[in-house]
Amino acid sequence: MSRHFLAEGLELSGGDRGLVAVVAAVALAALAVGYVLLREVLAAGQGTSKMQDIAKAVQEGAAAYLNRQFRTLGIFVVVVFVLLFALPAEDTGERIGRSLFFIVGAVFSAIIGYLGMWLSTRANVRVAAAARETGGREKAMRIAFRTGGVVGMFTVGLGLFGAALVVFVYVGQAPRVLEGFGFGAALLAMFMRVGGGIFTKAADVGADLVGKVEQGIPEDDPRNAATIADNVGDNVGDCAGMAADLFESYAVTLVASLILGTAAFGAKGLLFPLIVPAIGVLTAVIGVYITKARTGENGLTAINRSFYISAVISAVLCTIAAFVYLPSSFASLQGVDGAVAATPGNPALIAAIAVIIGIVLAGVILWLTGYYTGTEHKPVKEVGRTSLTGAATVILSGISVGFESAVYTALVIGGAVYGAFLLSGSVIVSLFAVALAGCGLLTTVGVIVAMDTFGPVSDNAQGIAEMSGDVDGDGARILTELDAVGNTTKAITKGIAIATAVLAATALFGSYKDAIEKALKSVGSEFNDLDFVTFAPNVLVGLIIGAAVVFMFSGLAVNAVTRAAGAIVFEVRRQFRENPGIMDGTVKPEYGRVVDICTRDSLRELATPGLLAVMAPIAVGFGLGVGPLAGYLAGAIATGTLMAVFLANSGGAWDNAKKLVEDGNHGGKGSDAHAATVIGDTVGDPFKDTAGPAINPLLKVMNLVSVLIAPAIVGFSVGADASAGVRYAIAFVAVAVIVAAVIVSKRRGTAIADAPAEATTSA
Amino acid sequence: MSRHFLAEGLELSGGDRGLVAVVAAVALAALAVGYVLLREVLAAGQGTSKMQDIAKAVQEGAAAYLNRQFRTLGIFVVVVFVLLFALPAEDTGERIGRSLFFIVGAVFSAIIGYLGMWLSTRANVRVAAAARETGGREKAMRIAFRTGGVVGMFTVGLGLFGAALVVFVYVGQAPRVLEGFGFGAALLAMFMRVGGGIFTKAADVGADLVGKVEQGIPEDDPRNAATIADNVGDNVGDCAGMAADLFESYAVTLVASLILGTAAFGAKGLLFPLIVPAIGVLTAVIGVYITKARTGENGLTAINRSFYISAVISAVLCTIAAFVYLPSSFASLQGVDGAVAATPGNPALIAAIAVIIGIVLAGVILWLTGYYTGTEHKPVKEVGRTSLTGAATVILSGISVGFESAVYTALVIGGAVYGAFLLSGSVIVSLFAVALAGCGLLTTVGVIVAMDTFGPVSDNAQGIAEMSGDVDGDGARILTELDAVGNTTKAITKGIAIATAVLAATALFGSYKDAIEKALKSVGSEFNDLDFVTFAPNVLVGLIIGAAVVFMFSGLAVNAVTRAAGAIVFEVRRQFRENPGIMDGTVKPEYGRVVDICTRDSLRELATPGLLAVMAPIAVGFGLGVGPLAGYLAGAIATGTLMAVFLANSGGAWDNAKKLVEDGNHGGKGSDAHAATVIGDTVGDPFKDTAGPAINPLLKVMNLVSVLIAPAIVGFSVGADASAGVRYAIAFVAVAVIVAAVIVSKRRGTAIADAPAEATTSA
Repeated sequence: MSRHFLAEGLELSGGDRGLVAVVAAVALAALAVGYVLLREVLAAGQGTSKMQDIAKAVQEGAAAYLNRQFRTLGIFVVVVFVLLFALPAEDTGERIGRSLFFIVGAVFSAIIGYLGMWLSTRANVRVAAAARETGGREKAMRIAFRTGGVVGMFTVGLGLFGAALVVFVYVGQAPRVLEGFGFGAALLAMFMRVGGGIFTKAADVGADLVGKVEQGIPEDDPRNAATIADNVGDNVGDCAGMAADLFESYAVTLVASLILGTAAFGAKGLLFPLIVPAIGVLTAVIGVYITKARTGENGLTAINRSFYISAVISAVLCTIAAFVYLPSSFASLQGVDGAVAATPGNPALIAAIAVIIGIVLAGVILWLTGYYTGTEHKPVKEVGRTSLTGAATVILSGISVGFESAVYTALVIGGAVYGAFLLSGSVIVSLFAVALAGCGLLTTVGVIVAMDTFGPVSDNAQGIAEMSGDVDGDGARILTELDAVGNTTKAITKGIAIATAVLAATALFGSYKDAIEKALKSVGSEFNDLDFVTFAPNVLVGLIIGAAVVFMFSGLAVNAVTRAAGAIVFEVRRQFRENPGIMDGTVKPEYGRVVDICTRDSLRELATPGLLAVMAPIAVGFGLGVGPLAGYLAGAIATGTLMAVFLANSGGAWDNAKKLVEDGNHGGKGSDAHAATVIGDTVGDPFKDTAGPAINPLLKVMNLVSVLIAPAIVGFSVGADASAGVRYAIAFVAVAVIVAAVIVSKRRGTAIADAPAEATTSA
Repeated sequence: MSRHFLAEGLELSGGDRGLVAVVAAVALAALAVGYVLLREVLAAGQGTSKMQDIAKAVQEGAAAYLNRQFRTLGIFVVVVFVLLFALPAEDTGERIGRSLFFIVGAVFSAIIGYLGMWLSTRANVRVAAAARETGGREKAMRIAFRTGGVVGMFTVGLGLFGAALVVFVYVGQAPRVLEGFGFGAALLAMFMRVGGGIFTKAADVGADLVGKVEQGIPEDDPRNAATIADNVGDNVGDCAGMAADLFESYAVTLVASLILGTAAFGAKGLLFPLIVPAIGVLTAVIGVYITKARTGENGLTAINRSFYISAVISAVLCTIAAFVYLPSSFASLQGVDGAVAATPGNPALIAAIAVIIGIVLAGVILWLTGYYTGTEHKPVKEVGRTSLTGAATVILSGISVGFESAVYTALVIGGAVYGAFLLSGSVIVSLFAVALAGCGLLTTVGVIVAMDTFGPVSDNAQGIAEMSGDVDGDGARILTELDAVGNTTKAITKGIAIATAVLAATALFGSYKDAIEKALKSVGSEFNDLDFVTFAPNVLVGLIIGAAVVFMFSGLAVNAVTRAAGAIVFEVRRQFRENPGIMDGTVKPEYGRVVDICTRDSLRELATPGLLAVMAPIAVGFGLGVGPLAGYLAGAIATGTLMAVFLANSGGAWDNAKKLVEDGNHGGKGSDAHAATVIGDTVGDPFKDTAGPAINPLLKVMNLVSVLIAPAIVGFSVGADASAGVRYAIAFVAVAVIVAAVIVSKRRGTAIADAPAEATTSA
């Protein structure tokens, strides 16, 4: 037992149990605050009947999509539930708990996603309506940000409540059960990110290609049959997908912290990671309530200010909590690992610094992302300026911005991990420090979710305003400004999300190693570090495969969007062709058909990348072994971090460069420069809203799958029950599933390439 | 000693010394064959005086650039020579030999590069002239391919001769001295790839932006002041840079094989890796002489046929050599490591299979790259078809093709490494098998270099034809076809080059570990595998940094091109504006000025990425330690492999998609579809010819720097001479150099963004 992280024999004192109850109460309070904010948002005016009609169409389309998506995913969840139940476990209690909380995690993830979509589709019209009033800028911004606040409160509330509940019930077995909880959350979030991401960008790209590029009509023009689908997409992708994603980040980071905390600090290590996010709930409430743009101030400045204020408050309160709750020497901690008691250093100080590192990391990423994707800084201005030499230079400069920002973001995240690692000479304590830095990041999640939701709500509000034609002048300008701010806040969230992925994955790595060590011991075998050294050729091959999966996943996601967009181009052209009245504005296009196509295609397209994420670690683990699987995870984390930030930030920069030109720079709307930036924006769409953000849950899913299958791999590899036949058979099935999924998706062809053929002949 | 790879006490028998002499003789014979081919190429007709004038301008520009580049790099080489001399070594002989052969490697690399440029600038006009004659297709193709043959023969001849010489003189110390040789070759090749790559693409992009996009004049139109520079660029980048790059691959793979061969197989392991490439020389001669396009056959088919024939001959001969020269059990091998003697298995069989794996790998990459970038296969056709929906879909589909092909190529390379690894249960023997697979790849290098050089020579021939206006009808069609074939052969070479990088790096990893182990032992410390495990947070941070450096290097290279291209856009516009006679065709533009700008800017821009490559491993190694440096290398290899193939193949696909449209598909030249593919091609230019190919030498340089500095890192970290102050001071200086270089390159701003401002006001 002494070398293992888990602590089945761990007991909580009465005081500790009380503390868990308090944390649960704080979590419920967060839900209550969320409800209050929800009432406030819904109380706002809904504008003209035309606006309400549009909003209603969007609401219906979004709800229809999510309902169908949940039905599809439900089957998948049941299958995984059964597989999970079949995997090795300590005892039946753990087995049942793990599978049960897998469902709970998935359901919570779904609830958050659904709520995000439900509320956003109601807030968008209210933001548009508010922009028309006097003092509209403040009112519109307030509604948009508080909408985000609701989602933020529910995210942290449900995440914290779930974790507290598991700790209360399972105590020492909580970490293992939480693996199921985190896995459920991550898996559902990944599918929602991918499916929603394909929906939103297929609609967006399809709408732009026919509308802006071919017919020369503006974005969100009601004559374009894809506009409603575009707005639906914002809600199912950017709102629902993102909310589920951040909930998953929250859950998985907590899982990693609780696992490592128990090993490093004993019972106090199980509870301190609950205290930190509970403090985060408090400061998130403050952050949401104090956000208010001063007159003439950029919306982003106001949002950033509240972020920084709440971050500072978090840091102060967490430091106090660390010194009050944790002892000043390891001797008095009942760490599970006997060696920890002799570790030099001050646990309270280590914990406080680790949490602060996480909070500072969030602040630095916020600043860095704002710098690289904001309209008022050099990078986006330069991308905008290159529009004068055409689309090629826009693409190249955007890619450069993406590469550069990815490097700095990765270095900052790496620096945070290294900083936390240096806090202690004990590996297990330093891993816990990394996990605590992740908890530090979590204290900002409430505000981050609020910031992110702000983006699609503003985008939608502008869409409704444009389609209805009922908002003009100042109102329209306000909405454009909020939309640009939203582009940057969305990019920031992605940066934070990927940071949580790296921190959680680094920490989970420890639990992967532990799972293997333990499994080996149970079959009477020795753990051999040599199997995990980076320079062993097989580990290096694992690393290359891990990096390759990130590229493949990104390629599949981008491809899925272009394929689905092709079908939409085809449909919109058909409507224009068969019904000339649409172009005159005398006939309403059939919006519903485009929504249906998006729904059908996204659900069909999400299977391949989803299966890849689940099956690839199984193939590598059973096929090549536990060492190469460790290499695989490391390769995926390193490449995934850079790729995720690259895709998010180059996309964000292109989007805002287009906004810059639309604001009248370099020739303004309709100029060649504008056309060049529209091309950049279209390329960036699947980058930033489909492939990029899905990498975050991808990394977590792959990590958790690896942790969960580790004992089974060991079981089939060494000891009495070893069976090379079964082992390779499992790997073979996994590879076969991936290959079959890829072939099926290839078979569908490149619809965007096929569509023109028909269109050209009949145009 | 027993656990170390080096074998200072190794003695060669008289027969073995005779064998080395035979290998050296084969190497010299390769040079002789090269000379014969050279005479044949130069004997061909040179066409009209107008064509000769243009060729002369290109010759002068290219020679002027390379001369200036060598002067600049000379300083750098001297600095590194001194630093290398200061690094720890076994004894003075090794110290002097290592530094001396560093210079030899650099000079050989330079010679190959210069020869490649010199001959290409003479062959281009001869190919153009041959295309005008009857039977022009066969003649033109013959000259272009034999030009490549010359460079190929010199590459393998000099590489093999250098290695044989070192083995002859230094015997047991040869591996260490060869590290210097390989490092010299790799360093110079990297700079030539980066500098030449920036030159060629700055000129190309600049010419296209003003010529094709703004003025609507065709590519290579003599009125465009940047056309000569564009053609000069093909020679200094694609010919000189590529030739040096493949020479470097050759040298470094041999280095890795000899190091590991000695450890695994004793004296026979030192000699067998020389026999394999000597066989490669023979088969390369066959490959070059049998290449002949049958009537009506695609040029690529003919080239592929010779490749496959020579590969099969190589495989047969190497297998025979293995069974004749190597024993059938390890017991009779004087392996340095005592444990090897007891290894089960048949060394001859292992060696034969390993070499065949390498040869098959080359064939598979050839096929895979041809599939993804050739005009007659589905991927490029699809990219071409997406041009009907505009530039955005061209970019997205090209990126998808790049991602997808990178994944499959990486998996194939990973599969080859894993296959070689599985050949033996002994780590050292399996590492040697990986290195031997690299040697198998090397047997194809002669033909590969010939294929690659074919590309720029054909490109240039078309340029000269277009500028002179003296080649039309059939002749023009022939040159267009050869140019398209050249695009694919260039992409194939990049795939092979990156495969050598992965195999060499995997093998070099073993020598990195050995260097550390040995250094630790010398200071009385123990080697601890735990420092190298993938899941330690610090190793993971190293991994992330390694992946980040690949992104940064790529971003810097792309940026350098856009910046230099901006200066050229500016200059060409100035000439059009100040001298209206140029557009009428009455006045000749000042070609020389554009060549000067390219020369100046490329030399200025190559410093930052070059310094990054050398300094980053120093910073990580001294700053974070030997374990994180191992992670760094692994991260760089995994991400670098994917990134290199992605950049090369997406660029190749865009280029050929453009050719497809120019051949009359989807509307042909001048259509909207054509404009869309021109944008794709322009984006792809710095991808495929600057950033992508430079990643191969980058990986080798970083690996060799790490191997060379490993003893110094250990010396400053543990033992009596340990000094944290010195260690961190070195890391600090390395970081400071990188930061300063990045700031200096940032200061230069984005010229391409600044240029339009002036041009717009005065246009």
